[in-house]
Amino acid sequence: MTNGGPGDGRTTKIVECIPNVSEGRRPQLVERIADALRSVPGVRLLDYSADASHNRSVFTFAGEPDGVQAAVLALYECALPAIDLRAHSGEHPRLGAVDVVPFVPIAGVTMADCVALAKQVAAEVARRFAVPVYLYEEAAASPARTNLEDIRRGEFEGLATKMAAPEWAPDFGPATPHPSAGASVIGARMPLIAYNINLSTDRLDVAKKIAAAIRHSSGGFRYVKAAGFALKDRGIVQVSMNLTNYEKTPIFRVFDTVKREAERYGVSILESEIIGLVPAAALQACAEYYLQVAGFGARQILENRLRDAE
Amino acid sequence: MTNGGPGDGRTTKIVECIPNVSEGRRPQLVERIADALRSVPGVRLLDYSADASHNRSVFTFAGEPDGVQAAVLALYECALPAIDLRAHSGEHPRLGAVDVVPFVPIAGVTMADCVALAKQVAAEVARRFAVPVYLYEEAAASPARTNLEDIRRGEFEGLATKMAAPEWAPDFGPATPHPSAGASVIGARMPLIAYNINLSTDRLDVAKKIAAAIRHSSGGFRYVKAAGFALKDRGIVQVSMNLTNYEKTPIFRVFDTVKREAERYGVSILESEIIGLVPAAALQACAEYYLQVAGFGARQILENRLRDAE
Repeated sequence: MTNGGPGDGRTTKIVECIPNVSEGRRPQLVERIADALRSVPGVRLLDYSADASHNRSVFTFAGEPDGVQAAVLALYECALPAIDLRAHSGEHPRLGAVDVVPFVPIAGVTMADCVALAKQVAAEVARRFAVPVYLYEEAAASPARTNLEDIRRGEFEGLATKMAAPEWAPDFGPATPHPSAGASVIGARMPLIAYNINLSTDRLDVAKKIAAAIRHSSGGFRYVKAAGFALKDRGIVQVSMNLTNYEKTPIFRVFDTVKREAERYGVSILESEIIGLVPAAALQACAEYYLQVAGFGARQILENRLRDAE
Repeated sequence: MTNGGPGDGRTTKIVECIPNVSEGRRPQLVERIADALRSVPGVRLLDYSADASHNRSVFTFAGEPDGVQAAVLALYECALPAIDLRAHSGEHPRLGAVDVVPFVPIAGVTMADCVALAKQVAAEVARRFAVPVYLYEEAAASPARTNLEDIRRGEFEGLATKMAAPEWAPDFGPATPHPSAGASVIGARMPLIAYNINLSTDRLDVAKKIAAAIRHSSGGFRYVKAAGFALKDRGIVQVSMNLTNYEKTPIFRVFDTVKREAERYGVSILESEIIGLVPAAALQACAEYYLQVAGFGARQILENRLRDAE
């Protein structure tokens, strides 16, 4: 007689959402948006920051899909009446008052779930607020709309002209920009992991060559962006990376490749750094890889069992 | 302006508890005890099993310290009136109706916290149920009482004689056994990880030599118990281990040592297996080790941030 206890049936679903809002100079408004997000049941505000020169703020929150949808709508409710892009300036390119809204699968949800959520929220944003919406990344309706930069090119100021072209008809909502709020770009993507590897050398050329070897743009791994930098105060160099899909290009493969490439130049790895948040699954995959663990399931992690039982 | 969100101040505390009860032949009673544990708010019953030949059942649950304490008392409340050791037989050695109650730190709590919890529960068990209690392992009052087997030697049948000796006065409660419930052994220990490494060979002597090299009893690591076995149906051998303190003897160090020892015999590692539950921290330590991650904190794991915010 063995029983897995009461948590067997259900797995907690966690979606992360990182809306970018075109307001970074009015702290009170940023706080009001943060409070609006905090007030939604089932959602946790994990981080937020505002940048005055960009005139932009970024909020990171997570929770079950229903709660995350409610939080995005609460954010629009709070932000739209207070932001007028006709009077907005800042260094960062932007198309709308609520500029970009990505949904990210963290646990118990697939990318397909996040794409469905993105479309549902896009339809609701268009309906409730009369804001045109473009779907991007994994939610994109066509390859030409996958990249955020392509959609955003021309910015708010060029939006009316851009939307007049049939190929830039929005995926949801009116065929012309919202007067003060422009348009929104809503979609789904994998979590981004900011990962740096520091090398025991001051040779910048080595860091740059390794970065070129591993990044997608110059022939490396599909989901790696990388550049080489000097950390002058420490007398070392760094391969600085964004890993954009840790399932398909896992951390351990990137680490081992950098290590091997560095050996080619007689250089060793001093240390690596994970900047900001990382999904537990990305680290667990590394433990499983190096320990050659067979047949392991996430439900064997005690904390997951506790969470899933709630 | 950056803000960590609402979860900054508080960390969820998780203690695991694995009481061993001297009843494995009456499924209805085992179910009643399981229901008693399930009914305690803030506690999750993760697993339970009963063994008829041992006439013993083991319950695994976890939660915040207060809830765990309430659950242990609920278990005594349910089990004591129904179990009479004077009429109990079974293969497994036992001293009491509720035989052993270990508290295990999982997250947000130290071993010292678990020792304090063990003493508090021990005092309460003695007061409410008039059961004498011995503290063991990390909670032990003296080295002679650290090992469960030393305390339990003589079993229930020899308990009255044993307790008459001054050196076996209990840590809490009456100086003589409870008539039907004997005594309890309550304490604190690290989580136990059942970990096996399978070798690409059928040479049992290699598995046995490696087990001898790494286990504490024959000169190996302090917190490793190990034995070599043949997996005859697969034509391979296994080093089967219990890791009794993953912080002081981490999985990666054991794995790397087994790998190196195997190379000595021209043998490679086929795979490893984690049996049952493992704390997330034990796997994260492996990822940090192999990736040479510097300055990483558990709060950078997204799921931890979510949990801590609740």
